[in-house]
Amino acid sequence: MSSIVAVGSLAFDSIETPFGKTDKILGGSANYFSLAASYFAPVRCISVVGEDFPKEHLALLQSRGIDTKGIRTEKGKTFHWSGKYSFDLNEAQTLETCLNVFERFEPEVLDGYRDSEFVFLGNILPSLQARVLSHMRQPKFAAIDTMNFWIEGQRQPLVDVISQCHALIINEAELRQLTKTYNVVQAAQIVRSWGPQILVVKRGEYGAMLFDHGEVFVVPGLPLAEVKDPTGAGDTFAGGFMGYLASQSQFSLSRPVLRQAVVYGCVMASFTVQDFGFKDLLKLTKEQIEERYHRFVDLTSFHLR
Amino acid sequence: MSSIVAVGSLAFDSIETPFGKTDKILGGSANYFSLAASYFAPVRCISVVGEDFPKEHLALLQSRGIDTKGIRTEKGKTFHWSGKYSFDLNEAQTLETCLNVFERFEPEVLDGYRDSEFVFLGNILPSLQARVLSHMRQPKFAAIDTMNFWIEGQRQPLVDVISQCHALIINEAELRQLTKTYNVVQAAQIVRSWGPQILVVKRGEYGAMLFDHGEVFVVPGLPLAEVKDPTGAGDTFAGGFMGYLASQSQFSLSRPVLRQAVVYGCVMASFTVQDFGFKDLLKLTKEQIEERYHRFVDLTSFHLR
Repeated sequence: MSSIVAVGSLAFDSIETPFGKTDKILGGSANYFSLAASYFAPVRCISVVGEDFPKEHLALLQSRGIDTKGIRTEKGKTFHWSGKYSFDLNEAQTLETCLNVFERFEPEVLDGYRDSEFVFLGNILPSLQARVLSHMRQPKFAAIDTMNFWIEGQRQPLVDVISQCHALIINEAELRQLTKTYNVVQAAQIVRSWGPQILVVKRGEYGAMLFDHGEVFVVPGLPLAEVKDPTGAGDTFAGGFMGYLASQSQFSLSRPVLRQAVVYGCVMASFTVQDFGFKDLLKLTKEQIEERYHRFVDLTSFHLR
Repeated sequence: MSSIVAVGSLAFDSIETPFGKTDKILGGSANYFSLAASYFAPVRCISVVGEDFPKEHLALLQSRGIDTKGIRTEKGKTFHWSGKYSFDLNEAQTLETCLNVFERFEPEVLDGYRDSEFVFLGNILPSLQARVLSHMRQPKFAAIDTMNFWIEGQRQPLVDVISQCHALIINEAELRQLTKTYNVVQAAQIVRSWGPQILVVKRGEYGAMLFDHGEVFVVPGLPLAEVKDPTGAGDTFAGGFMGYLASQSQFSLSRPVLRQAVVYGCVMASFTVQDFGFKDLLKLTKEQIEERYHRFVDLTSFHLR
């Protein structure tokens, strides 16, 4: 088993969906990623919060075994995102992004973190993602996520840091925007030409795709009778995906390991969308995770006669 | 092996997509369905065309072994649909629907057709679908498709005929419209409460879902580097699905047979979307179909360790 260094946001999220509304609940890419990954491998978290961030939440992350020494508290307010979803929960409409303490954030990778084999560059400013990556000794697997906000405002720095990663993990709509290409198979070729040999496409309720070694794998999302809020599902997916890769006794990016990692990503995401916030991610058992993995087997099996 | 009676439209389609434009090419639900199903089982086609319909096309259908005695030629013009797709090829915008000869069509089920075990009620007026179904002796499996045009204008007659069928095969967006329910799992419960024990949801590039016996199965669409025109893909899907069911040596709606039928539906649809019109559906070999079925196995396999 290896450890994962994850950089991303800890945030307050204000979310409105057709199924409810929340005001400033705890969220952020590092939060969802770390919680999901913590079921598989040790996670070392790099982020920044403001003075308004509740100490109890750091304790909560620690209770899941997450190393929070890399989370700095700075003068000012915690990052705040507010967004809205319509019935089509696949895409969020951002109402407001207040960077707050992220505006002056200069992430430091602690000495004890530099030798991690896995790095996840969560959805924050591309220059900060690049800074974290440059501080790592020699990661065997660096993956990066992003969003429309950076594709629009920071395209070139973003493409530069993507080109240094082994994998890009991105929403389908944002992949199209980033590559300026509608067809996903063609978009995958563009991403590979930049550097990453692995592309994981997150498709909301339609699941995820994996492009690697010239092959494609697709797994659907789990059909649920109740889906309340997709916020954090993408980061939870990435946490399950990276966590499973890091949990292998020997480093492997083999076809079956990568595919199973994508399924574990969908498994973890299916717990997040059931309700607002991350509370369903705090109290899972290994059995619940395995039970849901087997629901994906049932959901997709057809070729055994 | 059993035979399939299929009622639906033969039409001229005028289609515009970001990848091209056609003026009055041959199409219609009965056309695409019959061609796809003809690779699996005998098809008996019921439809109506105008005097402007080319005789050579009927000969083409016959060359695929399709029984065209049920296709009447009436005074007037052939049904004409014109539609437009944007980059999101999942939903067509109807520009014009000219029923023409369908306005006075009273379909007759020939005596020799009445004992078919399989009936497909393609996307035409619900009252005509009901008429055809009532003429059948005792079909073991009746499936019905429809579209937004009838959901908006003929909802009650449509629900009435759906309630008499074993299966509903419908687009995801139209399922939501029909059941007035966004969540597909909940929508499936509504459809089952009307009568059909089987629901097949067509999801465009995202593949298809099968709800039966309280279980869900999902297969993704085949990622293709080139997709030009999805017109007819839904009927081609239904043709592959019904054709495979009818091709069984013994009648079966078992879990593996239904699931494999859904995959064969996606296999056949993947040939249709590659180009405008149906020409790729004329010259397939069993080997090409099986090769593509195995691409779906490769595309979706993950649980064998």
